[in-house]
Amino acid sequence: MAYFDAASAAPLHPVARQALLASLDEGWADPARLYREGRKARLLLDAAREAVAEAVGCRADEVVFTSSGTRAVHSGVSGVLAGRRRVGRHLIVSSVEHSSVLHSAEAHEAAGGTVTRVPVDRSGAVDPSVYAAALREDTALACLQSANHEVGTVQPVAEVAEACRAAGVPLLVDAAQSLGWGPVAGDWSLLAASAHKWGGPSGVGLLVVRKGVRFAPQGPADERESGRAPGFENIPAIVAAAASLRAVRAEADAEAVRLRGLTDRIRARVPELVPDVEVVGEPERRLPGIVTFSCLYVDGEALLHELDREGFSVSSGSSCTSSTLTPSHVLRAMGVLSEGNVRVSLPPGTVSEEVDAFLEVLPRVVAGVREKLGAPSAAVVRQDDALVLDALGKLCPLPVIELAKVIGEVPVGGTVRVLADDAAARQDIPAWCEMRGQEYLGEEPAEQGTAYVVRRTG
Amino acid sequence: MAYFDAASAAPLHPVARQALLASLDEGWADPARLYREGRKARLLLDAAREAVAEAVGCRADEVVFTSSGTRAVHSGVSGVLAGRRRVGRHLIVSSVEHSSVLHSAEAHEAAGGTVTRVPVDRSGAVDPSVYAAALREDTALACLQSANHEVGTVQPVAEVAEACRAAGVPLLVDAAQSLGWGPVAGDWSLLAASAHKWGGPSGVGLLVVRKGVRFAPQGPADERESGRAPGFENIPAIVAAAASLRAVRAEADAEAVRLRGLTDRIRARVPELVPDVEVVGEPERRLPGIVTFSCLYVDGEALLHELDREGFSVSSGSSCTSSTLTPSHVLRAMGVLSEGNVRVSLPPGTVSEEVDAFLEVLPRVVAGVREKLGAPSAAVVRQDDALVLDALGKLCPLPVIELAKVIGEVPVGGTVRVLADDAAARQDIPAWCEMRGQEYLGEEPAEQGTAYVVRRTG
Repeated sequence: MAYFDAASAAPLHPVARQALLASLDEGWADPARLYREGRKARLLLDAAREAVAEAVGCRADEVVFTSSGTRAVHSGVSGVLAGRRRVGRHLIVSSVEHSSVLHSAEAHEAAGGTVTRVPVDRSGAVDPSVYAAALREDTALACLQSANHEVGTVQPVAEVAEACRAAGVPLLVDAAQSLGWGPVAGDWSLLAASAHKWGGPSGVGLLVVRKGVRFAPQGPADERESGRAPGFENIPAIVAAAASLRAVRAEADAEAVRLRGLTDRIRARVPELVPDVEVVGEPERRLPGIVTFSCLYVDGEALLHELDREGFSVSSGSSCTSSTLTPSHVLRAMGVLSEGNVRVSLPPGTVSEEVDAFLEVLPRVVAGVREKLGAPSAAVVRQDDALVLDALGKLCPLPVIELAKVIGEVPVGGTVRVLADDAAARQDIPAWCEMRGQEYLGEEPAEQGTAYVVRRTG
Repeated sequence: MAYFDAASAAPLHPVARQALLASLDEGWADPARLYREGRKARLLLDAAREAVAEAVGCRADEVVFTSSGTRAVHSGVSGVLAGRRRVGRHLIVSSVEHSSVLHSAEAHEAAGGTVTRVPVDRSGAVDPSVYAAALREDTALACLQSANHEVGTVQPVAEVAEACRAAGVPLLVDAAQSLGWGPVAGDWSLLAASAHKWGGPSGVGLLVVRKGVRFAPQGPADERESGRAPGFENIPAIVAAAASLRAVRAEADAEAVRLRGLTDRIRARVPELVPDVEVVGEPERRLPGIVTFSCLYVDGEALLHELDREGFSVSSGSSCTSSTLTPSHVLRAMGVLSEGNVRVSLPPGTVSEEVDAFLEVLPRVVAGVREKLGAPSAAVVRQDDALVLDALGKLCPLPVIELAKVIGEVPVGGTVRVLADDAAARQDIPAWCEMRGQEYLGEEPAEQGTAYVVRRTG
């Protein structure tokens, strides 16, 4: 049994647990009150703020404790957009941000603002020069994650921050995935993070707003947390968050080396052990604990289910519409296969034997799911000298499975038109072509669904 | 040493502590995930939701867990105002609501909406017929607290809910002060509450939205909590909140009788022990644990400080502008004295000896603060047959102290004009007249500050 989904939530660090327990008795009162219990609570809150500021590399009065990382992002984005409204209403985000950033961008568009979504390369990284080119006269705010939550790719934050600084545009960095590993380099203006990602408790997010950033908190007024995070402060959890951040940082360098060794092994071994698999994300500039791969001809939900039965907890950004999973906008933006997607994110302390066991189980599980999906017969017709594969009504991953079966019947240089009405085909057929060295010619509207045209090159 | 500020935050209930500890190990994972740890977290969350629904008297799918009571109010108000925008943009609140409701109303006004603030009587209660008269064709939402947080007065929620129901207007009840004592009676539509008020942990609020209420969550989209409370769920705290609500409810009836006895004693004894004091709030229809009184000629902050030195933690809604306290809009709306205000709110478990000790200490503390404030000489001049008392530049409670000193020089039937530029005088001079049986004739603009005119009647 192994929990390999630290990028969603890390188990509570022992130091967080101790700090939480210790402060339940000292930190429950209202820190705004003048009496003894209130002063004790205030001391704990102030000490936690100092500790977090030191770990982030900022001033204590720049740190606001929110109730989650999502709230930190929502408040940070809306506060700067309102504070800099005179400058303009243009917002820049990368196309692989966390949903909290992308949903903030959608809300901004719904309110009449404009948004540029900076694309990423096949590894999931933005190009700093492409990002810089998106900066405009009327840009109120730019957002970039420190590292991607689905594939682990580290973003060029320092370079982008420099371009933003030169343009006079504040950069908000979503550091949720990386803050436990170290401070964010570069001259950023705002930072958001979430304690439960580094082994702190649920219920604590961080919003850091550098002095000098124009910021107008949105929503009803509230005097807590410099007016930037309404509601009674959750001091025991805040104390636990601060204590565990210090603790994980003390172990971070050694643990990073160790986990990187384990994820390197997964990156190398999975393609050797499992046929038709693509490891995605930047191989070098990446977080230590995350490795992501996609398996052709597999339904992501079935794969998670079977891995769970074998005792492994992983997540998936599979776009298979036959499952209840949320399709991954990250994998789509990268243009890589999302079919049968698995994200392994190792919590600190993961031992080598757990990774060995996973690598032993994985090939059998993938083979089993593939076998269960079977080999449904496709209606293949020849039409004007081109093969037509009718996969209408078939859900991901079946269209790709059928394509793989008929490609051998296509003469080299000839084409096959895959008719499909499952939206996932739009992403997975081109990704399959890329993996198999076949040529993807594009899509055309068909009488029903869409025709995806593939030329056999070998 | 006694903590008498349960209305701000109650110490953690032992059951909350146990439940929190137990669920730290089971409830840290993402409840949206399909694997074992996620399913365990989901089970805990579902069970907590069922338990809370039972205590509130609603369906489980009507309960949303927020990060605080303030967030619950903000989201509840903004969600209904947006959802019923076609009906109109009129909002009704009572004038003695919690700041989270009043700040929501201010935000609504700033966005172009209209707000009616229903007045209260001298006991702090709204009149249901006055509230009902505020309902209009274009009323989108009405808000009323179940009981007041500063003076403990219980509001006629059931009657107001009936009037709202008849008018087709949803009623949001802020039940933060009362939910630990029992469910809210009447046919309300939304309810907000806060776990740390009933001995649950910080970081958990409740928002209940009855089926059928038009509700459009504001802010960026998020899939958590039916889209009504963004951010990762704080499951250990939610479990602790639900468990402690059940526990305090089991003890509520007996504890209510006991605490009511203690607060009855304070209500009766304080005017006997301390001269020039006014006990405020409804004497019968009130919460069991809250009693509030105001002491003439005393600065609220000095009083809190001295009580704290004696080991008693209380709060104050004193409007003295010489202190750092927030002036109480509740006491102002009631038209009662706010000078030297003290709110005693007893946590469950308070013992009789603690109340005895408080009653022993209080007269000495009040006398000490009064003595320290001294008897500054006022410039009294006779002008057109009326006494003029120049209290310009003097901060609360000095203008009232000086008035009390010169009233003996005013012939019965004659008037005194008190010149003052401290805003607190506007509330405290009429309140002093009410307490002393003198006639307050009103205020007039003066060359400097304001002239408050008082006729000596006896």
